[in-house]
Amino acid sequence: MTELDRWVLSQSERFLEELKTLLRIPSVSTDPKHAGDCRKAADWVADHLRKLGCRDVQLLASDTHPIVWGVGPDVPGAPTVLIYGHYDVQPPDPVNEWTSPPFEPVVRNGDLFARGSTDDKGQVFAAIKAFEAICQGGKPPVNVRFMIEGQEESGSRLLFDLLNKEPERVAADAVLVSDTSYFAPGWPAVETGLRGLCYTEIEVRTSKTDLHSGLYGGAVPNAHDALVQILGKLKTPDGKIRVPGLYEAVKRPSAEERKAWKKLPFSEARFLRDEVKAKALTGLKPYSVLERTWALPTLEIHGIMGGFTGEGAKTVIPAVATAKVSLRLVPNQKEKTVQKQFLKAVKAAAPKYADVKVRFLHGADPVLVDISSRPFQHIDRAFREVEGRGVVPTRSGGSIPVVPALGKKGAPVILAGIGLPDDRLHAPDEKINVEQFYKGIRAFARFLTYMGDG
Amino acid sequence: MTELDRWVLSQSERFLEELKTLLRIPSVSTDPKHAGDCRKAADWVADHLRKLGCRDVQLLASDTHPIVWGVGPDVPGAPTVLIYGHYDVQPPDPVNEWTSPPFEPVVRNGDLFARGSTDDKGQVFAAIKAFEAICQGGKPPVNVRFMIEGQEESGSRLLFDLLNKEPERVAADAVLVSDTSYFAPGWPAVETGLRGLCYTEIEVRTSKTDLHSGLYGGAVPNAHDALVQILGKLKTPDGKIRVPGLYEAVKRPSAEERKAWKKLPFSEARFLRDEVKAKALTGLKPYSVLERTWALPTLEIHGIMGGFTGEGAKTVIPAVATAKVSLRLVPNQKEKTVQKQFLKAVKAAAPKYADVKVRFLHGADPVLVDISSRPFQHIDRAFREVEGRGVVPTRSGGSIPVVPALGKKGAPVILAGIGLPDDRLHAPDEKINVEQFYKGIRAFARFLTYMGDG
Repeated sequence: MTELDRWVLSQSERFLEELKTLLRIPSVSTDPKHAGDCRKAADWVADHLRKLGCRDVQLLASDTHPIVWGVGPDVPGAPTVLIYGHYDVQPPDPVNEWTSPPFEPVVRNGDLFARGSTDDKGQVFAAIKAFEAICQGGKPPVNVRFMIEGQEESGSRLLFDLLNKEPERVAADAVLVSDTSYFAPGWPAVETGLRGLCYTEIEVRTSKTDLHSGLYGGAVPNAHDALVQILGKLKTPDGKIRVPGLYEAVKRPSAEERKAWKKLPFSEARFLRDEVKAKALTGLKPYSVLERTWALPTLEIHGIMGGFTGEGAKTVIPAVATAKVSLRLVPNQKEKTVQKQFLKAVKAAAPKYADVKVRFLHGADPVLVDISSRPFQHIDRAFREVEGRGVVPTRSGGSIPVVPALGKKGAPVILAGIGLPDDRLHAPDEKINVEQFYKGIRAFARFLTYMGDG
Repeated sequence: MTELDRWVLSQSERFLEELKTLLRIPSVSTDPKHAGDCRKAADWVADHLRKLGCRDVQLLASDTHPIVWGVGPDVPGAPTVLIYGHYDVQPPDPVNEWTSPPFEPVVRNGDLFARGSTDDKGQVFAAIKAFEAICQGGKPPVNVRFMIEGQEESGSRLLFDLLNKEPERVAADAVLVSDTSYFAPGWPAVETGLRGLCYTEIEVRTSKTDLHSGLYGGAVPNAHDALVQILGKLKTPDGKIRVPGLYEAVKRPSAEERKAWKKLPFSEARFLRDEVKAKALTGLKPYSVLERTWALPTLEIHGIMGGFTGEGAKTVIPAVATAKVSLRLVPNQKEKTVQKQFLKAVKAAAPKYADVKVRFLHGADPVLVDISSRPFQHIDRAFREVEGRGVVPTRSGGSIPVVPALGKKGAPVILAGIGLPDDRLHAPDEKINVEQFYKGIRAFARFLTYMGDG
């Protein structure tokens, strides 16, 4: 145990209470009702950075969902690390499936439960506390900048705009992003690839108004029928997406990369039993589960609106039905190309009597990360010391749309998260393991120190 | 113009204002939140019957959704007419598609718009006002009983129970039901057949909790996917229901009956343009539109719940999805048999990884009415005098589940409504034509008078 580790241990209760305070703010960025809460979370983070000695703390680009910017003490001649994260969270729906309320953080069996606990408040806060740790001796050994946004869950539009106008914000020697997870407990990871996203709404209209199923049923179109026909045509039951051209751009991971994945401690049976908790896995059987979730595109239905969904039995033939559907994209697919392919496939799948519209709500291109530079050696060493094992190169099936923009000035983007695979991000009972939170602080503090050494 | 007609004309404004008062009560019986409003509507109807001279006015069987019972002045030796109707209404959803608020009745261009205006408050109130009209000369010429329920839109359970215990309530020489519509403007109709109903909810569960589509997408089941697969298998795109055995019991209308339907003033093109307002009709092309909507079973999706349907873009793989689906049944299908057939078909259509439950919410057997008895001659004469044309025998695609119970003591059940085909019952902008309301009062008053003559 180093002096650093002892200090983190001595402060651990305070750190946890501080994190809980942040988690109590329901900063759901996808819901306009929570705009005020997003601002509240931004103010809290900004105040916190000020208290830790940051200069030039600012709320950038928005009154409601600002990007929190902060600069650590000036360390002339030392390298610069940019720390990126986000204070916004996913909606807590379905709220009734949470064991405890999503915005009342509570520890049970070593896990801290709350919306945002792992995605991303708990993780970005571990990086902030690492900064606090390296400031204990007076001046930190490295220049640190913080860029903590409030729209990661809703498209990062403000941050994209800011970085278009002010690209120098990401000029650094490394960008540290803690918004992902270990491969498994005891197996820290860096992500070498992220899937992209194309989030859409398909709206089908089949008549001017809803119609009574008694009077008209049997002779008139039903918007849900049409939608079911369309959705049924977009994917085969075994998971092959039937959007013409979609697979053409897909670049399969190299044989070497796939071979490395086989060595990871992954058991399909355990994955099914402990994480997925379903009767069976699905998807394209010729490919491994890791390839299916990391390196193949997907199409998922998230929800269907329209008609009557209230209490009881209303016998209405719906005029309008809407489905929220998204595709995950993989290298070398392009979001813009997929939008065109998807639109064409939806129109082709629609019955003639239906008017179909497709809206594109949100998206990101997929990412491949080159992990050959020196900062990756530092993060590897940091985790090796804390965890007894260095970082393994993996991919993530999820998207962090802003990653390409973070690297646009040439800094290597290190995606080294401290979540665990069963953290249930975006789902009820999201949690962060409390020990992981402390390990993250200790690993990130080491990483910042080694970065200072050059 | 008879004295009766002149009196109705003289009272017409008052009648309309009274109806509006009843329409302002949001007596939605399918929604427990409106239980108090249902009681309010029952109280209003009961008070009204008392004011009109009814004896023995009672609220039967429930505190919240009672059956309003009332008996007109005793006319020894005269026949008895039972008037059935309902004061409960369908939910107003989707509320934002109404031109004016559903519970703020307003007349535009000769139509009175409100939820319940035609189904059934406006119609049953026309029968009540007919009773008021025949009481003007002192004693009415016939014994009248009222049985006005508050659960027609949610299964009539209380009324079924009441009639099981007290079948004498429906001992009468005729039962008048005004809860249907003319075949066309100027074409009053009696229904010789009603479709039945089997209203269900299909619930599909594919995992313990919702899962993140980034982390798991490509390898795990999606409840909406499973539901789309099931729904896609239950009906062909042209409308054939793929529930094994379903069509076996269907008794096709006689060649004679179908020939009579061909003489009705029905134009497919006008039906599509003025009523349905869609790009095209759908359904089983070998059969006429009237046969499809009157005498063939249907399967309709009313709404789909589960996953994320809020504002924005939540990338969740839903664990649970539920569809509201109903089938319309025709002579000689039986609701109980169809339930079994449907359950089997749903289970067979479900992917292996899905747990499927089917709930049966509500239903009714189909009905065939024999229209050869004398009261049908009276209703024919009544409408012939008011409208210049007698009643044409038609069928209805809708269900009035209580009809068989109303006829269980042998009284002929006369389904002679005063709605018009474009009244949009169960849909936004439901209306009743104000002139139809007055014609109904005049025709029903004549009918009651002729019934008194024997």
